[in-house]
Amino acid sequence: MYRIDNLQYANWSEKIFRQMREGGLDAVHVTIAYHENFRETVLNMEQWNRWFEQFPDLIVQGRSAADVRHAHETGRTAIFFGFQNPSPIEDDIGLVEILHDLGARFMQLTYNNQSLLATGCYEDADTGLTRMGKQVVREMNRVGLVVDMSHSADRSTIEAADFSERPIAITHANPHAWQPALRNKRDEVIRAVTSNGGMLGFSLYPHHLKDKSACTLASFCQMIADTAEKFGAEHLGIGSDLCQDQPDSVVEWMRVGRWTKEIDYGEGSAAAPGFPPMPDWYQDNRDFGNIAQGLADVGFSQAEIEGVMGDNWLRFYELNFGPKP
Amino acid sequence: MYRIDNLQYANWSEKIFRQMREGGLDAVHVTIAYHENFRETVLNMEQWNRWFEQFPDLIVQGRSAADVRHAHETGRTAIFFGFQNPSPIEDDIGLVEILHDLGARFMQLTYNNQSLLATGCYEDADTGLTRMGKQVVREMNRVGLVVDMSHSADRSTIEAADFSERPIAITHANPHAWQPALRNKRDEVIRAVTSNGGMLGFSLYPHHLKDKSACTLASFCQMIADTAEKFGAEHLGIGSDLCQDQPDSVVEWMRVGRWTKEIDYGEGSAAAPGFPPMPDWYQDNRDFGNIAQGLADVGFSQAEIEGVMGDNWLRFYELNFGPKP
Repeated sequence: MYRIDNLQYANWSEKIFRQMREGGLDAVHVTIAYHENFRETVLNMEQWNRWFEQFPDLIVQGRSAADVRHAHETGRTAIFFGFQNPSPIEDDIGLVEILHDLGARFMQLTYNNQSLLATGCYEDADTGLTRMGKQVVREMNRVGLVVDMSHSADRSTIEAADFSERPIAITHANPHAWQPALRNKRDEVIRAVTSNGGMLGFSLYPHHLKDKSACTLASFCQMIADTAEKFGAEHLGIGSDLCQDQPDSVVEWMRVGRWTKEIDYGEGSAAAPGFPPMPDWYQDNRDFGNIAQGLADVGFSQAEIEGVMGDNWLRFYELNFGPKP
Repeated sequence: MYRIDNLQYANWSEKIFRQMREGGLDAVHVTIAYHENFRETVLNMEQWNRWFEQFPDLIVQGRSAADVRHAHETGRTAIFFGFQNPSPIEDDIGLVEILHDLGARFMQLTYNNQSLLATGCYEDADTGLTRMGKQVVREMNRVGLVVDMSHSADRSTIEAADFSERPIAITHANPHAWQPALRNKRDEVIRAVTSNGGMLGFSLYPHHLKDKSACTLASFCQMIADTAEKFGAEHLGIGSDLCQDQPDSVVEWMRVGRWTKEIDYGEGSAAAPGFPPMPDWYQDNRDFGNIAQGLADVGFSQAEIEGVMGDNWLRFYELNFGPKP
């Protein structure tokens, strides 16, 4: 069994890398850009290169499914790069291949707002894929950069799932029916993604959870069971959205970037603008295994548990991180 | 026998790629930056990515010696990226690894002028390696980006050869004793490079040739024989400096970049500012094999000829393009 968390944006440190090892994580997809342009994204990669150099016994850069197996065998965590926004490619489709060469494996087409490529989930009007969006999806398909629609609007997500020649992902969100957050996904959206071979990663970010920070492990795992029944357990994994050790200034950067001079509270509010506290059963990477126990308690088979905990993401990596066959 | 031309800066086109195949070239090291900054260098890589996509039967990106063998077996030419100036890393040592990840395999520490790293061959005073220069050479050693001192001053070159923990290269120049051009290298410089395991690639750029455009194949090959006697044939290869199909505006860019408002004629003159005509026995890539015949005529053994024509560069690639062991 492999353990993969397919989305985190922590304030990385040796402490967190050691907690990844304690939690037995073989791979983590880390966000390295929210609103960064190309050069700023490269600076973030440079920072990761320093960490790979400083902590070779804990982490290693991941580029393929084979790297996850190699990390597992050598007791390390493979780190895969991803962007929550297409800002790193700016207006230049040639940067898709450049960034894939540098290790990018997931890119969201939008982050809450309209982008050059598609529409975010906070906009009133949804254009679907733009002209450039279609070109970029084809190029992402060609090189093996996965389309992620976690923060995208419904029509855009459904169009991307249908237009893409390879499966896409919602790396971190939950069903809207369970918790009606703007970021959670309606059944028709999840169906469009999973019926085309795509993946849904369940989020542990409290705004995406029923009862938020008070959500129970049993409620979370029952939601996974209900989703498995509707869409098939093989399309499901975890994308915890863990933002460990981040100051509240970072959630403001995530929401506001440089696109507005006003404060936008996103899923928070003026009364509670910061990061919400995580559920007590999921404080950090060391708690990753709790989900396996919760899944067993709601009746998942051992094979299904292994799938959700990491094997489904690993199979997805295997098929989608290389050049289009 | 592998055939490698370890420096060209042509005005690339399908025609030239086909001529590489007609000349039997298994690998070519291409200059992709003279004065370009990081972003401009990436744009040049993007242009190469389009050519790799358009002409997959002729060219393929090279990153390792294995790629040369694979190109040979599949009847293609492996293209290796290099810079004639450290401008692509700007003032940021972290870009060394980023650019190596993107395929850069040679970087000159200077292009004629003083750089942040060392001194070019046209300056009056030679600082040797600067503080940043030493740091960058260590980093280039770590990741497997080869130090090239073709356009550097003597003290800087000797210091780089001695300071570097891995062999360095002069990719394109000839002995100063044969043709006393500012760009050609004195014996003590060649000795510092070759005695540390480094390589000298002979240039066919007329300003570097005895009798310039009228240089004979016999004179060129006798010069190689004399150099082999002094420094050992195993350290020698070809770096033709072929600038095929370039307009004269390009040689001005090479010389002037953005560093001066005045014209600098470099190795040319006000009377002859443009590219000089190539010798009649070396017009383009199809003539590469002529050198093998010339080497045989001056008495080289078959094994030595194979070394100079490509096998010596291939062995050098094998040892120096990967992470430091």
